[in-house]
Amino acid sequence: MRIEVETLGDFARGAAFLGSGGGGDPYYGVLLAEAELAKHGPVEVVSLDELEDDAVIAPCGWIGAPTVSVEKLPNGREVIAGLQKLEAVLGRRVNAVMPVEIGGGNGLAPLVAAAKLKLPVVDADGMGRAFPESQMSSFNILGVSSCPAVVTSADGSTILIEGCDNLAHERIARGISIAVGGIAHMVEYPVTGSDARRTAVRGSVSAAISIGRAIRTAQPAGGDPFEALFAALRATGTYGHAGVLFDGKIVDIERETKDGFSIGRATIEAFGSDETMEVIFKNENLVARRGGRAVALVPDIITIMDRETADSITTERLKYGQRVKVVAAAAPTLLRTDDALAVVGPKAFGIDEAYVPVETLNNWS
Amino acid sequence: MRIEVETLGDFARGAAFLGSGGGGDPYYGVLLAEAELAKHGPVEVVSLDELEDDAVIAPCGWIGAPTVSVEKLPNGREVIAGLQKLEAVLGRRVNAVMPVEIGGGNGLAPLVAAAKLKLPVVDADGMGRAFPESQMSSFNILGVSSCPAVVTSADGSTILIEGCDNLAHERIARGISIAVGGIAHMVEYPVTGSDARRTAVRGSVSAAISIGRAIRTAQPAGGDPFEALFAALRATGTYGHAGVLFDGKIVDIERETKDGFSIGRATIEAFGSDETMEVIFKNENLVARRGGRAVALVPDIITIMDRETADSITTERLKYGQRVKVVAAAAPTLLRTDDALAVVGPKAFGIDEAYVPVETLNNWS
Repeated sequence: MRIEVETLGDFARGAAFLGSGGGGDPYYGVLLAEAELAKHGPVEVVSLDELEDDAVIAPCGWIGAPTVSVEKLPNGREVIAGLQKLEAVLGRRVNAVMPVEIGGGNGLAPLVAAAKLKLPVVDADGMGRAFPESQMSSFNILGVSSCPAVVTSADGSTILIEGCDNLAHERIARGISIAVGGIAHMVEYPVTGSDARRTAVRGSVSAAISIGRAIRTAQPAGGDPFEALFAALRATGTYGHAGVLFDGKIVDIERETKDGFSIGRATIEAFGSDETMEVIFKNENLVARRGGRAVALVPDIITIMDRETADSITTERLKYGQRVKVVAAAAPTLLRTDDALAVVGPKAFGIDEAYVPVETLNNWS
Repeated sequence: MRIEVETLGDFARGAAFLGSGGGGDPYYGVLLAEAELAKHGPVEVVSLDELEDDAVIAPCGWIGAPTVSVEKLPNGREVIAGLQKLEAVLGRRVNAVMPVEIGGGNGLAPLVAAAKLKLPVVDADGMGRAFPESQMSSFNILGVSSCPAVVTSADGSTILIEGCDNLAHERIARGISIAVGGIAHMVEYPVTGSDARRTAVRGSVSAAISIGRAIRTAQPAGGDPFEALFAALRATGTYGHAGVLFDGKIVDIERETKDGFSIGRATIEAFGSDETMEVIFKNENLVARRGGRAVALVPDIITIMDRETADSITTERLKYGQRVKVVAAAAPTLLRTDDALAVVGPKAFGIDEAYVPVETLNNWS
């Protein structure tokens, strides 16, 4: 499988859905990747199974406030500088890249380096969606160290982080991202091929592309883009259950930027009834409550979508009056273990409800 | 010349004066160094002229809020880890260490590494006093790059900073120091022997020791510790002029911690008159005004001292009712050029008055 310029739109559309409302705006990921793919040709996608046991895989992604990412554009050299520094400190070449998270713009983050350096992209990632903090990763959950990690910025700064635990790494990298102007590139959680097979979320790059394609092609063919989305999600094997939680109009939005995060809630009212849904978010949507009762909880994916086009609406673009469907999908099983829920479950976000799978809460068969 | 356990008290006393009210509490610098000197023996002090042209000199010091430094104690391994990382990235051994700033606790910072690694300390530093930010350094003023620099913390984090300019370096290192708990160790502005001769403030380690000794020995011998201090300063050749600006009692203190700095003003009333002096500080004392007129301005040294013992009182220890003398000394000439004043002069701190040397303002001959 290869990613060509023509694939980028579907990839971005699928990554936006998997972002659960966050992960950064995929539009800029498309712009950056488009130029590089046009210049260097398509990017090879390889499965986890094709990797040599001792191959070095470098997860790539951006850290910072999504609001900054749309104002302070990267120049593309950050990714290359980060990979080169990692190679210098490991004393060997990187064999493949991977998104740190498949959700949002970060799903497309490794494409620039892949095209420029003729490296394959692994069909996998560390979150299977998007999360606001870097330790909310299957790599961390399953015992991979984030170090050595490299943070780079558009001004040429290259910062190598070693010797710290994965939580300290998140604090340090975030501190640096603020110091360099609000956004920076990160190469972190370098893994071997065999460790990637054990710890990464499998198939998420091809899943994003197939999901995006399904939504795009459904409507012109007279189909329902939501049904097409659900069929595509089921076909991935990774996201086993999906469905519409609510259909209505946004009647209230509260949002504040706090400690570098976008925190708030959206209230949606059903058409022709006074039933409401409340969606709480911290960069990503975390819990959806219908009539006060939770019907979907993090780490399951909750995405608010345009009710006609099934375009995903990121949390920073939610507006009063939007007519939306709230859609949920089951998180990858890697994120549903007790160990995983301690890191990415409701409690990790200060949410009171205990985690119950979205298919159980909604009696989806 | 050698620094022994018995030298540390004088060194700390002199460094406290040169700190101009800041630079961190020297007491903890003494504690840390004392243990290492007792274990590994005295530390050799070498002059700039003894260095090989291509020797590698590593300036060492702590970055963070002084208020944190007295609560979160370092473990001493930070300095070693930082030097080892610098050696790894340079691909060669460090030949000597040096304080990034002679003022306050940072004057003693390189002693731990010097004792443990049997490295000499160079009789010089990058500030000739203390300043709140790392780019306020003769190394920066005279064109040395802060990179490669290494920030280390007590938890084992080792962060290598490369490729950024000296202002970005300050922001990044400060962001990291906050992320790791408020204080971190820094190895920065690595210089060759020949560059050190061109850019460092000469003789500041031996100056601090001789100043401290002069104050300590004056009183028991029936002398005036202030006169002893001024004689010792003149003898250094580096701090050519010094004198008492004011004698009185602290009648008001304003102080707030803002953006990681301790910012405020002290008001001192003369004995038997209503004449007052106001001293403005940002970690360090920046300007002293008598009856509203500036009589000493940064980068000249302004230190508030106990009027009996000539103990220096750092800005975080100023209290209502203290009976003090406000003392000033001429800054090293390296800090008085136009290029230097752009970085460390009154304007760099948002102070309205243009810089005039303290000896001119006070008609000291």
